[in-house]
Amino acid sequence: MAVRKLKIAAAGLGRMGKRHAMHFLNRTPRAELVAAFTPDETEFQWARLNLEPHGVKLFSDYDAMLEQTEGLQAVVIATVTTVHAEEALKAMAKNLHVLCEKPLSTSVEITRKVVEAAQAKPHLKVMCGFSRRFDASYRDAYEKMDAGVIGRPTIIRSQTCDKHDPSGFFVDYAAFSGGCFVDMSVHDIDLALWFFGEDRLVKSVSAAGVVAVAPGLKQHQDYDNAVGIVEFHNGKVAYFFCSRMMAHGQEDTTEVIGTEGKLVVNGNPQANLVNTYTTTGINREIPPHYYGRFEHAFVSEANEFTAACLDGTKLPLKITGALRAVQIGSYLQEAVRTGKKLNFDETERRVEKATL
Amino acid sequence: MAVRKLKIAAAGLGRMGKRHAMHFLNRTPRAELVAAFTPDETEFQWARLNLEPHGVKLFSDYDAMLEQTEGLQAVVIATVTTVHAEEALKAMAKNLHVLCEKPLSTSVEITRKVVEAAQAKPHLKVMCGFSRRFDASYRDAYEKMDAGVIGRPTIIRSQTCDKHDPSGFFVDYAAFSGGCFVDMSVHDIDLALWFFGEDRLVKSVSAAGVVAVAPGLKQHQDYDNAVGIVEFHNGKVAYFFCSRMMAHGQEDTTEVIGTEGKLVVNGNPQANLVNTYTTTGINREIPPHYYGRFEHAFVSEANEFTAACLDGTKLPLKITGALRAVQIGSYLQEAVRTGKKLNFDETERRVEKATL
Amino acid sequence: MAVRKLKIAAAGLGRMGKRHAMHFLNRTPRAELVAAFTPDETEFQWARLNLEPHGVKLFSDYDAMLEQTEGLQAVVIATVTTVHAEEALKAMAKNLHVLCEKPLSTSVEITRKVVEAAQAKPHLKVMCGFSRRFDASYRDAYEKMDAGVIGRPTIIRSQTCDKHDPSGFFVDYAAFSGGCFVDMSVHDIDLALWFFGEDRLVKSVSAAGVVAVAPGLKQHQDYDNAVGIVEFHNGKVAYFFCSRMMAHGQEDTTEVIGTEGKLVVNGNPQANLVNTYTTTGINREIPPHYYGRFEHAFVSEANEFTAACLDGTKLPLKITGALRAVQIGSYLQEAVRTGKKLNFDETERRVEKATL
Amino acid sequence: MAVRKLKIAAAGLGRMGKRHAMHFLNRTPRAELVAAFTPDETEFQWARLNLEPHGVKLFSDYDAMLEQTEGLQAVVIATVTTVHAEEALKAMAKNLHVLCEKPLSTSVEITRKVVEAAQAKPHLKVMCGFSRRFDASYRDAYEKMDAGVIGRPTIIRSQTCDKHDPSGFFVDYAAFSGGCFVDMSVHDIDLALWFFGEDRLVKSVSAAGVVAVAPGLKQHQDYDNAVGIVEFHNGKVAYFFCSRMMAHGQEDTTEVIGTEGKLVVNGNPQANLVNTYTTTGINREIPPHYYGRFEHAFVSEANEFTAACLDGTKLPLKITGALRAVQIGSYLQEAVRTGKKLNFDETERRVEKATL
Repeated sequence: MAVRKLKIAAAGLGRMGKRHAMHFLNRTPRAELVAAFTPDETEFQWARLNLEPHGVKLFSDYDAMLEQTEGLQAVVIATVTTVHAEEALKAMAKNLHVLCEKPLSTSVEITRKVVEAAQAKPHLKVMCGFSRRFDASYRDAYEKMDAGVIGRPTIIRSQTCDKHDPSGFFVDYAAFSGGCFVDMSVHDIDLALWFFGEDRLVKSVSAAGVVAVAPGLKQHQDYDNAVGIVEFHNGKVAYFFCSRMMAHGQEDTTEVIGTEGKLVVNGNPQANLVNTYTTTGINREIPPHYYGRFEHAFVSEANEFTAACLDGTKLPLKITGALRAVQIGSYLQEAVRTGKKLNFDETERRVEKATL
Repeated sequence: MAVRKLKIAAAGLGRMGKRHAMHFLNRTPRAELVAAFTPDETEFQWARLNLEPHGVKLFSDYDAMLEQTEGLQAVVIATVTTVHAEEALKAMAKNLHVLCEKPLSTSVEITRKVVEAAQAKPHLKVMCGFSRRFDASYRDAYEKMDAGVIGRPTIIRSQTCDKHDPSGFFVDYAAFSGGCFVDMSVHDIDLALWFFGEDRLVKSVSAAGVVAVAPGLKQHQDYDNAVGIVEFHNGKVAYFFCSRMMAHGQEDTTEVIGTEGKLVVNGNPQANLVNTYTTTGINREIPPHYYGRFEHAFVSEANEFTAACLDGTKLPLKITGALRAVQIGSYLQEAVRTGKKLNFDETERRVEKATL
Repeated sequence: MAVRKLKIAAAGLGRMGKRHAMHFLNRTPRAELVAAFTPDETEFQWARLNLEPHGVKLFSDYDAMLEQTEGLQAVVIATVTTVHAEEALKAMAKNLHVLCEKPLSTSVEITRKVVEAAQAKPHLKVMCGFSRRFDASYRDAYEKMDAGVIGRPTIIRSQTCDKHDPSGFFVDYAAFSGGCFVDMSVHDIDLALWFFGEDRLVKSVSAAGVVAVAPGLKQHQDYDNAVGIVEFHNGKVAYFFCSRMMAHGQEDTTEVIGTEGKLVVNGNPQANLVNTYTTTGINREIPPHYYGRFEHAFVSEANEFTAACLDGTKLPLKITGALRAVQIGSYLQEAVRTGKKLNFDETERRVEKATL
Repeated sequence: MAVRKLKIAAAGLGRMGKRHAMHFLNRTPRAELVAAFTPDETEFQWARLNLEPHGVKLFSDYDAMLEQTEGLQAVVIATVTTVHAEEALKAMAKNLHVLCEKPLSTSVEITRKVVEAAQAKPHLKVMCGFSRRFDASYRDAYEKMDAGVIGRPTIIRSQTCDKHDPSGFFVDYAAFSGGCFVDMSVHDIDLALWFFGEDRLVKSVSAAGVVAVAPGLKQHQDYDNAVGIVEFHNGKVAYFFCSRMMAHGQEDTTEVIGTEGKLVVNGNPQANLVNTYTTTGINREIPPHYYGRFEHAFVSEANEFTAACLDGTKLPLKITGALRAVQIGSYLQEAVRTGKKLNFDETERRVEKATL
């Protein structure tokens, strides 16, 4: 019996694109990376050295890749955010499974289109890559909650905090990132939906932000530190902190607080298991970037997406969740930009006054 | 040379009152507990056994104690909150130094009166007992911040979380506690004022709360879990969480996040230095109550208050801070009760619309 | 009813002597420090300023203090080790209770004399101050073990590690310290006897030591780092590490390993509850000296000794334990100095060959 | 350009053998698992399902595999310890690279033969799999030490502690494991040689062991808990603890103590980044087995061995180290079995008396 492998193509070979390509090339036994696309010349040269020798066909045109790659079954999309949706739609039109880096789009409307397209083709596996869903620690926490260890989950605190990058890269990036809540907290929002239940409706949203280290963000109406509260109907509250100002490294921490206990994920960030004792005390280092924290989650993501495509099994997260996360991220973004608290009725329709 | 000691009386011998009395009796070498007052018969019997044998004169009438205690110089007030202000005013009227348990009052107006009375008698030491100001860890954090270790402080996260007491005591208590933000978060607010600077003015306040384990709180318009954001003018944000639902114990944690680093106080709560390794993993216990966490801070408070009275030195916190903390606590309480976001102009006058 | 207080005198006002005096003066409510002795002029001046104003009578002669202090009931001895025994014996001869800093003597023979004298006067409370016995964490660990949490205790690992003091103080001190195992590990040995049972007999002792940072130790046949194994009859083993080379601070850690679990005391040393997050990672500080770790244990020791004297209650540790600890410390010292393994029969008599 | 891959065969498909096979099949991009051998019928069936479909040729005879596998370049040996040496020698005779699970043999003499055979064929890569050498945390610690962070390394404490397996498996295993120091501490000994330097010579060895939970070990003269000290010439000491009695899980901890600091690896064992806060306190789980702790190290091992074979680069550990580790493990085993301290002169020749 020959082993069936998923023929997949990689779109986009930037920082995260390269990683996805390498994961599917080397760390996803049931997948075969057959093609890769990038419009960028430097990335293309990288692919010549690192992908082509392994039999990966290279393209500088996305459509050409879809059309000319024989037996292609799936695409992993990690191009710039602005083309995610278009590329996902084209892939679905060709009946290809899609694993798309988050977000599908920073626009709720565009995201909705992708989600609807996916829903129209239920035989396709279409997933937006919320990597934390594949992280062993988050999964362990979820299972413990699900087993009743903390009673009824009631409050979630979750933060996405990046190491400060003084190069100013993220200032330019803010022009099209959708803003800090859409770009960063979207992960925390997705976690809240996961732990509270995906059908949870929003009752109110408020937020506050500051520009402390990157004045250039002001021109994009963005913030380098922001705090937001999302109140759900039926007595649940999630609150979020996102920051690009951490001196020490990446610090993504989540607390799920229930009526009978609390689960904390990554309350004590660490790069590895080493502690250094010197005259200044005891020191431990922290991963500088999200990949240092979530590398294995990304690999699990690739493998589970592959298994779902090959075996027709269920994905661990629904594509509708991607829409909800961006939607709530947009609420937070509006709240922080306008300084207003947003209120919603029990069907999550906007209302002027708070409903108590 | 005879050693001069501060003659102090204790008003109120409830849970915390007993502790204050014992601190001044046994753990404040420069003070002499000369009198104690309680209107409660059971507490009075306790005092007969525990205070009287040490020469402490007992009273069931506050005014009588002030009048009949020879050479009295100071009073420590730990009666029920509703009489704090009146007793403090009477003591000041008699030219006595005052150490008053927090809060002076749950009412901003009444608090203001006490503060004004204190300001009118600058020769008196009048202090509202925010115990965390005397805690070695908070002080160490403050000194590190002050020394520039974390750059410019920008965001504060602080929580006061009590172990869940299923007896329902805190439900009845909610009738006159002022609400969870005034009763619990007031400590965190005080910390924010300490670390950000006492003259910081509020720009906006928003909050959300839930009743998860104590339905009786609803009749008092109070919450057993609440989250709030206080935005200050000039680019600083503090966010707070208070809860009476912790299964594990008391967990009061504070993060001060600066442009170049972060200080965390009590990020890993613990009752002592023991870890127990058994089949379920590694476990450590947590103090069940605030006194388990702050006992030594209370003792320091007693000693430093005494020193300030005897030596005429400056107290480590200003009485005006007590007013500010209650004021901001009241804003949060209003925000959570009405569901509205409160906005303020640059002089902290209420305005309808957010000023961006 | 007048409150009865224990009239106690302090002998020795060096580093630890000052602390004992202040504990009995200010932090032991049921004791009254009535006298103090020091042969040292500088210490005497300190006492003039800090003790005399509180009514403490000062002496530069130990015998004079014992004879001329009216109503004296007890002595706390913290002079240089070489006179501990003599002073303790004199105090017992005068029917005074004795709290003596460890060790009674570095000589097993002299220690035995003090213990025998104490046993001859069972109405006297005579205690050698093994401070860890009064530490809340060690006590919690003991109670957990006693409650069966870890099954049958089998292995103990315990270390006493001092912050490196480059002044060379401890090199001179090594001339009369009895050596590192007698001076430092004696605490760990006492813990082993406490947790394993005081009547435990030794089967074998082996050790190894190095001189890594203080070459001067060689002239005293001492070591700045040493490791030793004490095997007890009936299947228990304790192993010890002592060091004067720690860069980071005092690190006294103990593990009690049982058939069903393990208890660790101070596995994560810390000066307080602050963690500092900066570009180098997350750092916490550590107490530089044993007093930073054990201050509250010393205060408990003073209070419990006082209570035992006043109330005739049992002390929490037996004076015979002090002899056993020094004895085993001396075995280790012999083992490290001679390079030999010491073997003992089932009555702890020395034998040439190991008994398997 | 075609990508060159290392054609490797797996010998032995038991617990660890399966893992090695899967690592080379799926997680070592530059290797191609071409053959596998097991004499065990159940394992063979497993291979039919899990290896054969991927083109791996199966053998129930080792010699046949070596002879009949075309283009074979390397073998990974994970059969029972007793045949490691023979199989390694046969592979080298066929000019195959060898990655052999530890130990090469529990016999020093047999180990020496393998090492000599490897030295006679310097073109072959022959490695004994000390997995911790490939662990990211140990490597980070080594680099920090190498960079001078802790001054001159002087003392090493290292332990290998297994979760207690009440099935008694390890009792039967003790018949041919070589004893606890050879089987378990050999990892810690290898670490000591790594951190102190491979050419370090032994000065003395002493040890003590107990049988606490597995009485059956006595018939094999083995122990379920043992402590040993290895003193090296030139002022370095390593001390080891091995145990099969842990209730909580696998706990392999190492401290490297230098003249100016200390490095601790895995001082706070943990299965993942989750902490659970409930009424009993804060709990975290621990990996039950060494693979939970070292999975990624094994994968790195496979990849680096492969790279060394393909590129002719240096392996990160020398085959001679395997001999040294077993040799020192055997010293410890002799010391614990005989109850004697072993002494060695400066050329590591056995002498009767300690050389001080």
